[in-house]
Amino acid sequence: MIKAQTLKGFRDFLPGEARKRQYVINKLKAVFESYGFEPLETPALEYEEVLLGKYGEEEDKLMYRFTDNGDRKVALRYDQTVPLARVAAQYQNQLPNPFKRYQIQPVWRAENTQKGRFREFLQCDIDTVGTASPLSDAEIIATAAKSLQELGFKNFKIIINDRNIFSNLIKQGVFSEENMMTIIRAIDKLKKIGREKVLNEMIEKGISSEKATYAIQTIETMPPTENLQKIFKILPKLGINESQFEFSPTLARGLDYYTGMIFELEVEAYTAGSVAGGGRFDNLIGLFAGKSLPAVGVAFGFDRIVEAMTQLNLFPADLATTKVLVTIFSPELEQKSIEISSLLRSNNINCELWLDPESKLDKQLKYADQKGIPYVIIIGPEEAEGDKITLKNLETQTQDKLITLDEAIQKLTS
Amino acid sequence: MIKAQTLKGFRDFLPGEARKRQYVINKLKAVFESYGFEPLETPALEYEEVLLGKYGEEEDKLMYRFTDNGDRKVALRYDQTVPLARVAAQYQNQLPNPFKRYQIQPVWRAENTQKGRFREFLQCDIDTVGTASPLSDAEIIATAAKSLQELGFKNFKIIINDRNIFSNLIKQGVFSEENMMTIIRAIDKLKKIGREKVLNEMIEKGISSEKATYAIQTIETMPPTENLQKIFKILPKLGINESQFEFSPTLARGLDYYTGMIFELEVEAYTAGSVAGGGRFDNLIGLFAGKSLPAVGVAFGFDRIVEAMTQLNLFPADLATTKVLVTIFSPELEQKSIEISSLLRSNNINCELWLDPESKLDKQLKYADQKGIPYVIIIGPEEAEGDKITLKNLETQTQDKLITLDEAIQKLTS
Repeated sequence: MIKAQTLKGFRDFLPGEARKRQYVINKLKAVFESYGFEPLETPALEYEEVLLGKYGEEEDKLMYRFTDNGDRKVALRYDQTVPLARVAAQYQNQLPNPFKRYQIQPVWRAENTQKGRFREFLQCDIDTVGTASPLSDAEIIATAAKSLQELGFKNFKIIINDRNIFSNLIKQGVFSEENMMTIIRAIDKLKKIGREKVLNEMIEKGISSEKATYAIQTIETMPPTENLQKIFKILPKLGINESQFEFSPTLARGLDYYTGMIFELEVEAYTAGSVAGGGRFDNLIGLFAGKSLPAVGVAFGFDRIVEAMTQLNLFPADLATTKVLVTIFSPELEQKSIEISSLLRSNNINCELWLDPESKLDKQLKYADQKGIPYVIIIGPEEAEGDKITLKNLETQTQDKLITLDEAIQKLTS
Repeated sequence: MIKAQTLKGFRDFLPGEARKRQYVINKLKAVFESYGFEPLETPALEYEEVLLGKYGEEEDKLMYRFTDNGDRKVALRYDQTVPLARVAAQYQNQLPNPFKRYQIQPVWRAENTQKGRFREFLQCDIDTVGTASPLSDAEIIATAAKSLQELGFKNFKIIINDRNIFSNLIKQGVFSEENMMTIIRAIDKLKKIGREKVLNEMIEKGISSEKATYAIQTIETMPPTENLQKIFKILPKLGINESQFEFSPTLARGLDYYTGMIFELEVEAYTAGSVAGGGRFDNLIGLFAGKSLPAVGVAFGFDRIVEAMTQLNLFPADLATTKVLVTIFSPELEQKSIEISSLLRSNNINCELWLDPESKLDKQLKYADQKGIPYVIIIGPEEAEGDKITLKNLETQTQDKLITLDEAIQKLTS
C-alpha cells in the first residue's frame, strides 16, 4: 500500500488551521479593498525565462524548475513581484495607472526545511505601481499598519528607513559600492545579533576594523532623508500616530532591489521576526515593459501572522461556523430532524444535520463536541409529539427542554 | 528583452475577472458552511506515487510530473479527490467521522488547449466521507442546488441516476462487464450527440446492432433503484421541489469510480454543459487507509459557472468595492484630501485617495471611471475654505456642490 504522506516542507491544512487562514485572508482583503487595492491572480507556472535571473543566483537554485510535456522550460511561482512586473508589461494598455493590486497566492521554494522553512507558503502582497509620490509610500505603510490593527494586534512598531541613506554614502565617496553592500548586509542584523557580531562580520568580509566601526557610527547617526520627512508628515494624517513609527537608519532589509523608503512591522510580544516588510523598488517592475515603472509595496509574513495571532489569542473563539447540530433520535424520527434543519437554514442559521439515522445520540454529541459546534438540537418522541425541540448548549452543559423552534431560533441568533 | 507572456492554457486574472471569481467563491463557501462542510487545503505538490495510477492511463499522461531538487519524483495536484483520500488515511484518528470538507484550489492538467481547455483551473468540491446513508446523498444534492440558487440561477435541473442500474444489469447477466463499460461510455453522450450516434459508437466498439438497440431501450425504461427512491423522498424535505429534479437512467457520468447515486446540474439557458456533477464513490477514499470509506460528493465547474453567470448577468453591478475616489485638487490642498480619505475610511466607506498631488483633475476622473468607482470627491479652494466638499456621481454625471462631509457620508452609505 502506498504511504499516505506529504512532501517535506509541504503542509495539509485541516479545518481548524484552514479556518484561521481564511479569517486572516478575509480581514486583510477587506482592509486592502478599503484603500482601493484590487485583486490579481497569476498562474502557478511561468516560462522559466520570466523568473530566472530576477532574484539572484542563490534564489535561482531554490526555484522549482522542470521541462513540461511540450518541452517548454517552466518554473513554479517563486514570488509575486516578478509576475506583477510581467503583468504590468503584458497589459499596460489595459491597466489603470497607478495600478494598485493585492495578490494572495502560494509560492514554492526548495528551502532547507531544517531551518523551519516551508517549501510551499502563502504570499500576501500589496503594491502600488506607477507613481513615485511620497503619498504612495505613506499609504502602503498606513495600509499595512491598519491591517495589523484589524487583525487585533495592539502593540506593534513600524520601523522606517530610506535606502538612499546608503546610496548617498556611496555617491559621496564615503564607502565603495562593494563595501557598502557588505556593510548593509551586516548592519541589517544589528538588532538580531548585536553590535559585536555585526562588526566581526564586516571585518571577516575584508573591511578594516576602523572602517567597520566608523560605518556603524556614521549610519546610526544619519538623519532622515527629505523624502522620509515628507512621508513622516503624511502618516499622522493617514491615522498613524507618531508613537507608532520610528526612523531607524540601520534598517537595511535583505533584498537588493529596494531603491527608496523601506520599512518593517514588528509585533511587540512576538519575537520570531517582523510580520510585514516592504518599501520602494523603482527598477524592477519596468523590467518587461522596457520603461521605468516606480513601485512601492509590502509583503505580509502570512505564516508568522497566523502564528503570532495564535500565540496572542487574537482569533475569535467561534471560528467554527456551524452553530448547531440537528441530531437524529431514531430512524422513525429522521423526517422531523431533516425538516428542522431546513427551517433553521432558511432562518440563516448555519446548521449541520446528522446523517446516519441509526447512530446513538451519544456518538452524535461527541461529533458536535469534536467539531466545536456549540449547540445540538434533539427531537425525541416527546418533542415530536408536542411539535417541540430540545436545545442543548454543549459549552455550558445546560439545556432548554421542549421549547418551540421559534424560541430556539431566538436563542441561536441572539 | 524577455517577452511578457503566459504559458498556453494558463491565465492571468486581472481585477475585473478576479473579483468575479472571488464573488463566486465567497457565495459557495457560505452555502457549504451553512451545511457544516469545513475547509481543507492540501499541497500543490505530492509524491508522484500518491497520484499516479489513480485516474487512468490517459489521465496519468496529462499529469505534470517532474523530479525535484532532492531527486524525489513529484506531481502537481491533478484533482482534489485523491489528496482527500490521502488526508483521510493520514489523519484518520484526528478527523471527525463523517468528515465533511470543501476544497477550492487550482489543479494542473496538460490538456489539449485547442479544445478550449485550460491547463490550470480552479476545482471546487464538497465531499462527505464516512457514511453510506441516503441522507448524505440527498444532502450533497441539496447543497449543490442551494449553491446555484444563491449564485442567482433560477432555472436549473438536477438529473439523477444510480450506477447500480448498470451494475445490476451486469450481475443479472444481461450484459458482460466489458460490454457494459462500452455501453455506459456511449450512452453518457445521448443528450449531446443523439441516439443514432450513440448506437454507432456501440457498434463501432464491437457490440452487435441488435444488442446496442436493446441496451438503449432497456436502460431507458429502467425504474429508479430503491436507494434512489429513498433519496427522492428526502430531497423535498431538504427544500428541493420535485419539479427541480428528475430521474434519468441514461445519465452515466464519465468517471469509472462512481458506485451509486450520480447526478448533474444543468442550467437551462447555458448550453455549454453541466455546471456541477457528482455522486457516490465508495471505493476510492479508503485507498490509502486500507479500509472501506464510503463517500459522496459534488464538483462544481468553476469556469463554467463564472461564464454562465456572466452570460446571464448574474453578477452584481457593483462588484468593484471602492465607493469613492478622493481627488487632489492641487499640491496646496493635498492635506485636506488626505484627511477626508481617512475620515471616510473610519466611517467604513471604502475609498481611494489619489496619490499624485501634481495630476490634473481630468486625469483623476478618468482613472475613477476606468476602475468603475461610482463617486469622486473634490476639494478645491472654495470647498477647503468653507470646510465643505463636492461629491460627484460619475454614473449620473450629477454633483452635490459644497456639502458637508457628514452629508456626503449619508449619501454614500444610503
